[in-house]
Amino acid sequence: MTRTRIVLAALALAIPAWADTPSVATGLPSYAPDGQLHRPDDYREWIYLTTGLDMSYTPSTGAMDHSRFDNVFVSPSAWRTFLKEGNWPDGTMLVLEVRNARGKGSINQHGQYQVGDAVALEVHVRDASRFEGGWAFFSFEGGPTAKPIPMSEDCYSCHREHAAVDTTFVQFYPTLLGIAEAKKTLSAQYLREEAAR
Amino acid sequence: MTRTRIVLAALALAIPAWADTPSVATGLPSYAPDGQLHRPDDYREWIYLTTGLDMSYTPSTGAMDHSRFDNVFVSPSAWRTFLKEGNWPDGTMLVLEVRNARGKGSINQHGQYQVGDAVALEVHVRDASRFEGGWAFFSFEGGPTAKPIPMSEDCYSCHREHAAVDTTFVQFYPTLLGIAEAKKTLSAQYLREEAAR
Repeated sequence: MTRTRIVLAALALAIPAWADTPSVATGLPSYAPDGQLHRPDDYREWIYLTTGLDMSYTPSTGAMDHSRFDNVFVSPSAWRTFLKEGNWPDGTMLVLEVRNARGKGSINQHGQYQVGDAVALEVHVRDASRFEGGWAFFSFEGGPTAKPIPMSEDCYSCHREHAAVDTTFVQFYPTLLGIAEAKKTLSAQYLREEAAR
Repeated sequence: MTRTRIVLAALALAIPAWADTPSVATGLPSYAPDGQLHRPDDYREWIYLTTGLDMSYTPSTGAMDHSRFDNVFVSPSAWRTFLKEGNWPDGTMLVLEVRNARGKGSINQHGQYQVGDAVALEVHVRDASRFEGGWAFFSFEGGPTAKPIPMSEDCYSCHREHAAVDTTFVQFYPTLLGIAEAKKTLSAQYLREEAAR
């Protein structure tokens, strides 16, 4: 989940027909003239995929001061396509929202629950005509738009090498993993990794 | 979260106009002729409220063999009313879904993520004409319908005494707590408890 934030020169790529459609109404990505992605402000009304707590893909947990939940959402139209086809359509947006965890509070005495505003927001966009490899990550830092995370960052290689379905971690989405199995869209690489475990 | 499952004599109560409307299409509760609630099978397409891990409201954690996530959803129409009014309309359904947690798996090395099918499903229904106090809990045990949990169970008194808004634990729903504060719908009992902490 750790991704270095580096300023990236604006990408000059083709803009598909739905590029300026507001994401609020459609769940499709919308870009500013400089290529930055508009933050999809209505993602909490999209389809929920899963939540993890303090997930990490590296041996070191890093120096986390406290626990955090990751909630993942996808646009309704992309969800419906996945249910039918086991794969994501062009225009898919997956949103990963991070919220702080609290243990004791109100009447809760054990375990952890989510508190406060989202402390981080990352979006994974499929847009074949715009991004090399078809997908890009964006990290919103408080502003209404965000630049793509550079293709040299670890998130791209990690998702490309380990994702169950087309660079997305469907292995962590319990309502979709069975769909991908049934539709035979699990990647050969993922199936090899699972067979070797 | 522990609720004794006891067989309950069928309740003979008035049935509101929307009682036989399928929940799939409307997000409103639908009952069988014997008063059992139909399971709202489309709740994963409703609005997500929050997730907790191993939450417990009692000093003892009990004998849990492994960790579990609780995911909470609400019907879209009830969500929209809450955003406007800070309270739940009649016909509200809140769904609590429990899924097992796993630590190491695929490329995950730390923290926990959700795996497999839901292992429990509980629904909290607001239906003023049908239930004493306006709300009832249901626990689905694998079948398509469920009886109301008896009003003598702890869940009712706990929610009545500690809920932030009208028997619902809005204090654990980070996107709604601020709405209730702004609309001044937080219960007097909850405000007293928070002031005393």
